[in-house]
Amino acid sequence: MADDALIVFTPSGRRGRFEKGTTVLQAARSLGVDVDSVCGGRGLCGRCQVTVSEGEFAKHGITSRSDHVTGWNEVEERYKTEGKRAFKAGRRLSCQMRIVDNAVIDVPADSQVHKQLVRKRAEVRDIVMDPAVRLHYVEVDQPDMHNPSGDLERVQQALREQWGLDKLEDCDLRTLQHLQQALRQGNWKVTVAVHRGRRITAIWPGFRDRAYGVAVDIGSTTIAAHLCDLQSGEVLASNGIMNPQIRFGEDLMSRVSYAMMNPGGAQEMTAAVRQALNDLMAETAAEAGITPEEILNATFVGNPIMHHLLLGIDPTELGGAPFALATNSGITLWAAELDLKIHQDARIYILPCIAGHVGADTAGVALSETPHLSEDIVLIVDVGTNAEILLGNKHRVLAASSPTGPAFEGAQISSGQRAANGAIERVRIDPETLEPRFKVIGCDLWSNEEGFRKQTRKIGVTGICGSGIIEALAEMYMAGIIATDGTIDGAMAARSERVRQDGRTWTYLLNAGEPEITVTQNDVRAIQLAKAALYAGARLLMDHLEIDQVDRVVLAGAFGSHIDVKYAMILGLIPDCNLDKVSSAGNAAGTGARIALLNQASRDEIERVVHGIEKVETAVEPRFQAHFVEAMGIPHTTAPYPRLRSAVPLPAPKKATATDAEGQERSRRRRRREHAPTQE
Amino acid sequence: MADDALIVFTPSGRRGRFEKGTTVLQAARSLGVDVDSVCGGRGLCGRCQVTVSEGEFAKHGITSRSDHVTGWNEVEERYKTEGKRAFKAGRRLSCQMRIVDNAVIDVPADSQVHKQLVRKRAEVRDIVMDPAVRLHYVEVDQPDMHNPSGDLERVQQALREQWGLDKLEDCDLRTLQHLQQALRQGNWKVTVAVHRGRRITAIWPGFRDRAYGVAVDIGSTTIAAHLCDLQSGEVLASNGIMNPQIRFGEDLMSRVSYAMMNPGGAQEMTAAVRQALNDLMAETAAEAGITPEEILNATFVGNPIMHHLLLGIDPTELGGAPFALATNSGITLWAAELDLKIHQDARIYILPCIAGHVGADTAGVALSETPHLSEDIVLIVDVGTNAEILLGNKHRVLAASSPTGPAFEGAQISSGQRAANGAIERVRIDPETLEPRFKVIGCDLWSNEEGFRKQTRKIGVTGICGSGIIEALAEMYMAGIIATDGTIDGAMAARSERVRQDGRTWTYLLNAGEPEITVTQNDVRAIQLAKAALYAGARLLMDHLEIDQVDRVVLAGAFGSHIDVKYAMILGLIPDCNLDKVSSAGNAAGTGARIALLNQASRDEIERVVHGIEKVETAVEPRFQAHFVEAMGIPHTTAPYPRLRSAVPLPAPKKATATDAEGQERSRRRRRREHAPTQE
Repeated sequence: MADDALIVFTPSGRRGRFEKGTTVLQAARSLGVDVDSVCGGRGLCGRCQVTVSEGEFAKHGITSRSDHVTGWNEVEERYKTEGKRAFKAGRRLSCQMRIVDNAVIDVPADSQVHKQLVRKRAEVRDIVMDPAVRLHYVEVDQPDMHNPSGDLERVQQALREQWGLDKLEDCDLRTLQHLQQALRQGNWKVTVAVHRGRRITAIWPGFRDRAYGVAVDIGSTTIAAHLCDLQSGEVLASNGIMNPQIRFGEDLMSRVSYAMMNPGGAQEMTAAVRQALNDLMAETAAEAGITPEEILNATFVGNPIMHHLLLGIDPTELGGAPFALATNSGITLWAAELDLKIHQDARIYILPCIAGHVGADTAGVALSETPHLSEDIVLIVDVGTNAEILLGNKHRVLAASSPTGPAFEGAQISSGQRAANGAIERVRIDPETLEPRFKVIGCDLWSNEEGFRKQTRKIGVTGICGSGIIEALAEMYMAGIIATDGTIDGAMAARSERVRQDGRTWTYLLNAGEPEITVTQNDVRAIQLAKAALYAGARLLMDHLEIDQVDRVVLAGAFGSHIDVKYAMILGLIPDCNLDKVSSAGNAAGTGARIALLNQASRDEIERVVHGIEKVETAVEPRFQAHFVEAMGIPHTTAPYPRLRSAVPLPAPKKATATDAEGQERSRRRRRREHAPTQE
Repeated sequence: MADDALIVFTPSGRRGRFEKGTTVLQAARSLGVDVDSVCGGRGLCGRCQVTVSEGEFAKHGITSRSDHVTGWNEVEERYKTEGKRAFKAGRRLSCQMRIVDNAVIDVPADSQVHKQLVRKRAEVRDIVMDPAVRLHYVEVDQPDMHNPSGDLERVQQALREQWGLDKLEDCDLRTLQHLQQALRQGNWKVTVAVHRGRRITAIWPGFRDRAYGVAVDIGSTTIAAHLCDLQSGEVLASNGIMNPQIRFGEDLMSRVSYAMMNPGGAQEMTAAVRQALNDLMAETAAEAGITPEEILNATFVGNPIMHHLLLGIDPTELGGAPFALATNSGITLWAAELDLKIHQDARIYILPCIAGHVGADTAGVALSETPHLSEDIVLIVDVGTNAEILLGNKHRVLAASSPTGPAFEGAQISSGQRAANGAIERVRIDPETLEPRFKVIGCDLWSNEEGFRKQTRKIGVTGICGSGIIEALAEMYMAGIIATDGTIDGAMAARSERVRQDGRTWTYLLNAGEPEITVTQNDVRAIQLAKAALYAGARLLMDHLEIDQVDRVVLAGAFGSHIDVKYAMILGLIPDCNLDKVSSAGNAAGTGARIALLNQASRDEIERVVHGIEKVETAVEPRFQAHFVEAMGIPHTTAPYPRLRSAVPLPAPKKATATDAEGQERSRRRRRREHAPTQE
């Protein structure tokens, strides 16, 4: 028809004919083009910006010109001058301009509701914005005595009619208590927060577009929070504090013991973590220049014990076999149910735990690293006091937890310490002289470089952290100081004074200062035990998948970000893999919490994925013990690590020693017992 | 087949062939026969009792004998001796006895899940037991390390498998916090309370069959609670207390004023009513020998202002046009959200309000009296400070509220008082001598009977209550003391000293004692205003339905239970109707709350019904004013009341007096103004 114009939207390519005079936003909506709007096309929010393309578009058979839409009206003019919200060049407000003639309209990424937040690493999915809590501006009918209905019901009607929310169920009582005032203060124009398209959780008079959420990772040692803008997905502030539960026990099992031994102990720890969360959220909100009451949604990950304590569930059952979780489903709650001082009706979502040893933090890792979508077989390890391990691809994912103990965190190591200023984090040993050089956290220089002493005068060289001990051991192995079986070779004392006798065993002196930092035979054994547990867990899952090698390895968590993957592989922490196929994911658990915050569908996804993950309990698998014993050697006793060897020149493996043989014999005996219980 | 037997269940008539050895309960369930059970067929609850019929059943073609099922086993034997739970003669436990041969099995009413509670009045429905909160005993799988799942998820699985609850959604946090201990204390046998088949709200170790609910009617003056057994439907205790909000204002509008004039006033009244509810529920529970924590469900009705104050919603908007409700939907909440001290996860259901003046109490009346199911046209009036009126039948129901004022409750009457000991409630006047006789509350004798003085020495004759003033006026009218226009006829002073001059008007002396009890001209006017409002409301709804008479009248509420319907009609409170078609429903609002408590489907029903009710706002209907003025006379000025006249000998109506004529003129003027606003 003569009064129609052809409108093509890019990048979607959707097209349709519209009567002249139709607003561009209406046209976009009727075609299902993804254009953001909080105010529903009233020119208040400034989110529905588009650009009108200029030129001949042969592909579409039309000429598009900027005057093929109406010019700037009063409403748009306002945006020319409003500093912060001023438009970028060429931008127009699609709700204000009307169609005059054929046009190609481009919807820039930041104007899309479901915009993609691009993640840095190539192998992971971008985050599509689709938060569980959304704001909707509505104009509500006034009450009519001839046709009486509740104010709430008219708000619901407006949400249905103006926003298509046809699944609305209910309204939080506290919001209902303030609904009438908000409507009248706003002169029947209000902004409503709706949770998952179903439940009204907040209402404000007039127009509002500030909505925030927080993603929290509750670790045994530290709690980290990321405050996000629920509209843009931007992280506005990140913060971490110590988990105050540490005063009830350094590691998880001592906290469970505290709960078991002290009546009310679990409640004490619950109160402590909730208080810390309130402090953390208040601080993070202040940093972003908002109040905690503006936080409308929060997501949490944590290991099973942190998960249970947050919820106020006594973790005693997680302290012993069969390690029964109270629940392995995702949980949606009000903030008030957890005594959290954010918006009174903020919703909390806690990711599901996978098994008694594999928590919501690992669910977060899975959501971030998506093994369930992977074409190739990926091994993901998140190393903490326990190592959580995921293995699989889009067909099948397995999970296990391996009892590595805290050696990788510097505990149980004679000179061990947490990763903090003064801790040795990098080590090199000259294979000829056996002389070491190292770097400490807080100083960019190597210890043999000029200025190192001066720069470290204040921080000192105080100990060795997890990544440092890994490198020290790998370098000692490559220098021949440590044999394949982990023994420090006393014969080396002839070549260097740094190798010293210490009773019946030998030590290696890394730094002669105060304190003296050495690597003892016990240190080597502690790391051997830890790395054997980690490897055995991975290997056990590989057995279940019936594979002998993995295509990719992802190291998650703080430890995974700091170690040099080459050294991890030299020591045999992880199975053999091409070095360029090993990557660090950083705090993948926290990223998972952030994904769950910004994309509501991901909550359903992770619950489905967690349900489908095959849980392997290392404690009841005889093969775990066998792999564990076999993995004590460096890299380990039996596997040749051909792919590592092609990248790193390693010493030729020595013959198995008595230690290995004994271990293998023990393991064989154990397996026989377990598999043939009636024969004894 | 030879190993099959034909089993017929009565009274349902359902029949089927079953393998011998099948339990009778299994057979009943597979046929969908309604047999109760809390324990799921484990012989713990004793609810699935049946009797085996003896004899030839030609209709079914079988012989049934008591030995066509297996004999008493150990489990059944226990019930022989357990005092309180001992079986009635002939009763057997259907879950324990197994089929041996053909049999007719009778399921007595008290063994049915959906048993009917028979209500006394013929015109109303019986209540079918189907409470929103039900108990289910389950045996739960123990955790298995080879197949880890949460304890909650195994409870849910047991509820699905053993009870067919396949719509389970979630679990209350506070229940989840105690779930693991309950499972272990109960050795994996627990009783679970489930709300509406969907949400787990409580858990106890082992078997339990105590579940209670409370139905509450929050009146402006009194609050009444009925504590019910959720299994049997029995009312275990009923109790009433004064509404402490009276200290903020005697009537509703003064409470709204209090909220408007005093910052925090609404919250004060909310706290007062919630505290009273806690006291009332504790007292009622104690009376029934249970603890408040055993109350798992509560339902509430009340007028819109009581409804809003209970919910913590400021009632200011209800104080003036357009009388906007915050919500007109039914509301389901946790007890904790209303600070109610019953079971921590008890569910509250509040019936929907109908309009700004027509509350959840009227919704309760509708649920109890079911106008929406009536074949004939029923007028239901619930008289309090306002009169709530429902009119209609199964095709159409209308509702309105009429501003009667508190005269019917004894307020605004010179000698008026609440219905309490010493109040005159019945009056007769001798048409010849004009001498009265009366009865007072607390004494069974008439005032002219021997012993009346002695029996009333303590309580006295203190005033006149609502039903008393109605009878006094009607008797005065029939004795000719009051004219059709309501004037006390001074000419009667010649016939009796009881008619006395009082300034420019006359009074009638009802009792000469201390205090002296008289009926003044102002008293007559107050009742005329009240009854005209009531009548005009009913008449307005009749106009909307385009009818001139109603088939039935139901008087609900305390006032409706105490007045003699004949006198109500003589005065013209209600439209003309056959006297035997006028009934009292008692506290129908409270009954509605009880129905909503005992039958969950009724909640959906009343929300549907309320949605469909046509709301008529008397304040904006010009015809209301016209009817009001016309209804000032006794019975009233224009209607002939032929059906009343056929039952009661009434004086011939006198001609309209100046008062009537003036009133009609005023009303006509008003109508003209309202309909033609531009002409002035």
